[in-house]
Amino acid sequence: MNRNLLLISNSTNAGEEYLLWPREYIACFLNKFGVKKVLFIPYAGVNLDPRSIEKSFDVYEERVRKIFREMGFELNSIHHEANPVIAVNEAESIVVGGGNTFHLALMMQEFGVMEAIRRKIVRGIPFVGWSAGANVACPTMKTTNDMPICEPPSFNCLKVIPFQINPHYLDANPAGHAGETREQRLFEYLAVNRNTTIAGLREGCLFWIEGNIIQLKGKRSLRVFRYGKEPEEFESGSDVSFLLS
Amino acid sequence: MNRNLLLISNSTNAGEEYLLWPREYIACFLNKFGVKKVLFIPYAGVNLDPRSIEKSFDVYEERVRKIFREMGFELNSIHHEANPVIAVNEAESIVVGGGNTFHLALMMQEFGVMEAIRRKIVRGIPFVGWSAGANVACPTMKTTNDMPICEPPSFNCLKVIPFQINPHYLDANPAGHAGETREQRLFEYLAVNRNTTIAGLREGCLFWIEGNIIQLKGKRSLRVFRYGKEPEEFESGSDVSFLLS
Repeated sequence: MNRNLLLISNSTNAGEEYLLWPREYIACFLNKFGVKKVLFIPYAGVNLDPRSIEKSFDVYEERVRKIFREMGFELNSIHHEANPVIAVNEAESIVVGGGNTFHLALMMQEFGVMEAIRRKIVRGIPFVGWSAGANVACPTMKTTNDMPICEPPSFNCLKVIPFQINPHYLDANPAGHAGETREQRLFEYLAVNRNTTIAGLREGCLFWIEGNIIQLKGKRSLRVFRYGKEPEEFESGSDVSFLLS
Repeated sequence: MNRNLLLISNSTNAGEEYLLWPREYIACFLNKFGVKKVLFIPYAGVNLDPRSIEKSFDVYEERVRKIFREMGFELNSIHHEANPVIAVNEAESIVVGGGNTFHLALMMQEFGVMEAIRRKIVRGIPFVGWSAGANVACPTMKTTNDMPICEPPSFNCLKVIPFQINPHYLDANPAGHAGETREQRLFEYLAVNRNTTIAGLREGCLFWIEGNIIQLKGKRSLRVFRYGKEPEEFESGSDVSFLLS
């Protein structure tokens, strides 16, 4: 499949500036494809301004625009567009921000943007997504960590990779918490989805995918979950091409 | 509304025996209504035996049956029944165990059990649920913490209370985690569901509801979230009757 994807676990590491750690990767990735302009999808950011969703998207756009401008890219958000599908069709690159995956998928599906972005990706347009934005690249949103605050028409997503990402994958549990651990939640997923592989993508890590070449980058190892197998760890830079097969 | 509900945040506190802390409340509640037999809903327990869902339900039933037998109740699981709706119609009490809320809601809806249980509850049959089992008493499952491992026909639930419970509510975050906190997730919920109240039910706490009387029991305070307001804390035993109005 023709695809150029930068799928990022998280925007910001604890204690760091917003979108700091992946900035160099994003710039390098977009520059490789000669990108000047970015179409931003803010639909996951529901409460950056608590007064309304529309204002929240405005705040989100400004926050991300500032970073992208510093990197040399012009960024505009899709929520100003009268026809979002046309905006996607005319875009030279797509960037999907994090937040709530259910709200992101709901709006992408309702506006026809899910299908439109998929068509653009398979034609080779560069796509960048972090957190919820990485989740929507997967076959479904079934490995998101987010709360189901709204009900999308379907859990199906872009399906431009054949495996599921669990972003913000982490080993620690909150002190005194007796609920399910992250690993237990992923085992529950595998119990009812036996044929799918999950990539537990720790914070500060990303996948750089061009066609059938996938590279794992970042400071932490990847934890891979498959039904009936012990989870496996893969260091940054190691061969994870099995994820695309 | 005629209803008798025991809605429990969590089965087990960290480091304790399974279903230990709520045991006395469950026994007291069921005895008050003269219950001898319990119909158990195991649908949330997808991987207590990794070999199959059916075996998982068997393991879940045995685990819970042992505890209920010690309390003097006979317990049988609905998954053995050829016609689950008839089993609900003939039950003298319903107990819904925790696990994955999406799988629980999916099976309850597909088998017609959601609607059947609702009819029984409004006729006064005692209902006990913990974790996912407390979530399904709410209008929707939109404040669950669980992963959307499968896609239920709808997010609508029993709606036998007018507010949303967030079970296992906790203040702590995992060390080094840069994703959304629980509180942020609930604020996201309120951003798109402004008219609903959320009860953040900490571990070791429960609601005892008879008709229009609601009592908060347990060792920790309740944290209540409403759109446009600061979260409020309510100590065990305080008047939370506003939740039912």
